[in-house]
Amino acid sequence: MNRRIYNFSAGPSTLPVAALEATREALFNFAGTGIGIMEISHRSEAFAEYLEGVEADLRALLAIPQGYTVLFLQGGASSQFFMIPMNLLPAGTTATILDTGVWSHRAIAEAALFGNIHVGFDGEKHQFRRVPQNGEFSVAADSVYLYYTANNTIYGTQFHTVPDAAPMLVCDMSSEFLSRPVDVSRYGLIHAGAQKNLGPAGVTLVIIRDDLLAKRDREIPTMLRYSTHAGCGSMYNTPPVVNIFVVGEVLKVLKQRGLAGIDRANRAKAALLYEVIDASDGYYRGHAAEDSRSMMNVTFNLPTPALEKKFVAEALAAEMSGLKGHRHVGGCRASIYNAFPEKGVARLAQFMNDFARKNPQ
Amino acid sequence: MNRRIYNFSAGPSTLPVAALEATREALFNFAGTGIGIMEISHRSEAFAEYLEGVEADLRALLAIPQGYTVLFLQGGASSQFFMIPMNLLPAGTTATILDTGVWSHRAIAEAALFGNIHVGFDGEKHQFRRVPQNGEFSVAADSVYLYYTANNTIYGTQFHTVPDAAPMLVCDMSSEFLSRPVDVSRYGLIHAGAQKNLGPAGVTLVIIRDDLLAKRDREIPTMLRYSTHAGCGSMYNTPPVVNIFVVGEVLKVLKQRGLAGIDRANRAKAALLYEVIDASDGYYRGHAAEDSRSMMNVTFNLPTPALEKKFVAEALAAEMSGLKGHRHVGGCRASIYNAFPEKGVARLAQFMNDFARKNPQ
Repeated sequence: MNRRIYNFSAGPSTLPVAALEATREALFNFAGTGIGIMEISHRSEAFAEYLEGVEADLRALLAIPQGYTVLFLQGGASSQFFMIPMNLLPAGTTATILDTGVWSHRAIAEAALFGNIHVGFDGEKHQFRRVPQNGEFSVAADSVYLYYTANNTIYGTQFHTVPDAAPMLVCDMSSEFLSRPVDVSRYGLIHAGAQKNLGPAGVTLVIIRDDLLAKRDREIPTMLRYSTHAGCGSMYNTPPVVNIFVVGEVLKVLKQRGLAGIDRANRAKAALLYEVIDASDGYYRGHAAEDSRSMMNVTFNLPTPALEKKFVAEALAAEMSGLKGHRHVGGCRASIYNAFPEKGVARLAQFMNDFARKNPQ
Repeated sequence: MNRRIYNFSAGPSTLPVAALEATREALFNFAGTGIGIMEISHRSEAFAEYLEGVEADLRALLAIPQGYTVLFLQGGASSQFFMIPMNLLPAGTTATILDTGVWSHRAIAEAALFGNIHVGFDGEKHQFRRVPQNGEFSVAADSVYLYYTANNTIYGTQFHTVPDAAPMLVCDMSSEFLSRPVDVSRYGLIHAGAQKNLGPAGVTLVIIRDDLLAKRDREIPTMLRYSTHAGCGSMYNTPPVVNIFVVGEVLKVLKQRGLAGIDRANRAKAALLYEVIDASDGYYRGHAAEDSRSMMNVTFNLPTPALEKKFVAEALAAEMSGLKGHRHVGGCRASIYNAFPEKGVARLAQFMNDFARKNPQ
């Protein structure tokens, strides 16, 4: 109906067409109410029922155990960077954070306002090409929690094993949320901005172990306490209704696929690109070390910055956008989250091979 | 195209049909990019250009003077309740707050975490039927600012004169924003959640005088400093792209009308209902005192709670929803923000007259 191109953007990013179609249907008349989804009261029966369904779908898909609360918040991961220590790290106590790039960097800076931070892994020493394997990071003995970023969009790295030997785990899963199965019971708190795998920017998922809701070691404004939102079913104030609606529609699509199937599909998609990189005789140089390669963001360089510029421009002309790398690392980046179609990845792989042949170094 | 009913909800609330249509157009392909508005990178040229236009339209419509910064934030008025004192009220200093209902109540509670609060007007003594006229409130001599809620959705009251004899004014305009002209130069900060007159829930407008951005009297997490967002054009983190888009489309509609015209139309709409109330021989009892009547939320009672229940149910059957009053005040409430059509208000006025005739007390 409308010309659409392949959008390799790191986030906001491609959404399932079925979720866009459902949004179009609901814009003027949500659930037969005669009121549009951007206009309906968050306290209406129709929306309250819908929200219950969203939570139920998320719990089923991710197999969230009893004893965890799901929150729909605002403010993105950037707000979780301070809300987590504000709520969970009493003054004078210590958290261990693994520094694997810009997002954990920021998490460290904000947490340092509230407690002591032990940096258990310094990714900068590895130019952020790697995340630590078990045994390669340290944990301060008295750590309240160990915090890490599961997938690093900018550098294209990802944890493929959950850190062990840890106290309570706290994890930023923004850019890999629902891309593979997760054992939620190992975590005290998981947070995820929606705008990668889950929906439009403007809503942030938090999954928190119930015993942590009672924690309260300092004065915290009402809106910044997890317990406030938990006590009100995420309705203490007006939630971002339409954003939550789209998340609900994305979850319907993901639920049909299941996390194991999604994981397989994501690995297959990423393999198409990493195979081109590995077979290119060094024409394409992957940024991430092999053991840390992300299934979500494939980062790579070409022989020269001039060729990278040409690559991005010619890809755009071929209806593939968003391939320019982040300014921190340069080069190119293909973000291929859950909703990104395999056909588009295959087209990029073909384009990469063609480009290398036509533009020898 | 779709059956739509009259939605008198207090917020989220009715949006202009033109804004819904523009959203529908942009869902799959925003601005000819081939990428949908919920999927496009906030850092794309197309969105950056759009956002500039949104700000320009807002500045033109509201005649915002030089020396003010416009911010697009998340978290609603509930987040401004603490961000304002956190940023603007140094420890040990005083703010005066006029208590005219639930929202100023909450603003008082949050501000008390940061400084001394002088309650300059106690609306509870008046069952929140009135807002103070000039001369009816006090201001602590050393107040850093005077804070008030311009329109009180729950009680249906509204300030019709700007508080004078005040230090810097700070105002929650959430539920009357862009409903009438405002002299922005009298304010240090204005905030407004979008979900009444401006767009869908999920984006909050802040207009702040530039000299206040430099204030910094305590450690504040990066995301909670106004200066952070001002320094990044509201792009420190991923903003709620689709919500901002809809605000932009609503602004296009409002700009065509102009604030003076919008104000006239809003007064005419409200008059239709207040006239029915005043002519009903006490069948309908307006909650608000005459000098404090809101042009946005018309609150009233019927002779008995049973009749109120019947009124709400029969109105819904006649395709007018959202007329039940807030639980704090009971009774009925008709919210008739900018986008609510006069035809719908006229229909409600007729319905009120008919209902009173058919259901004598």
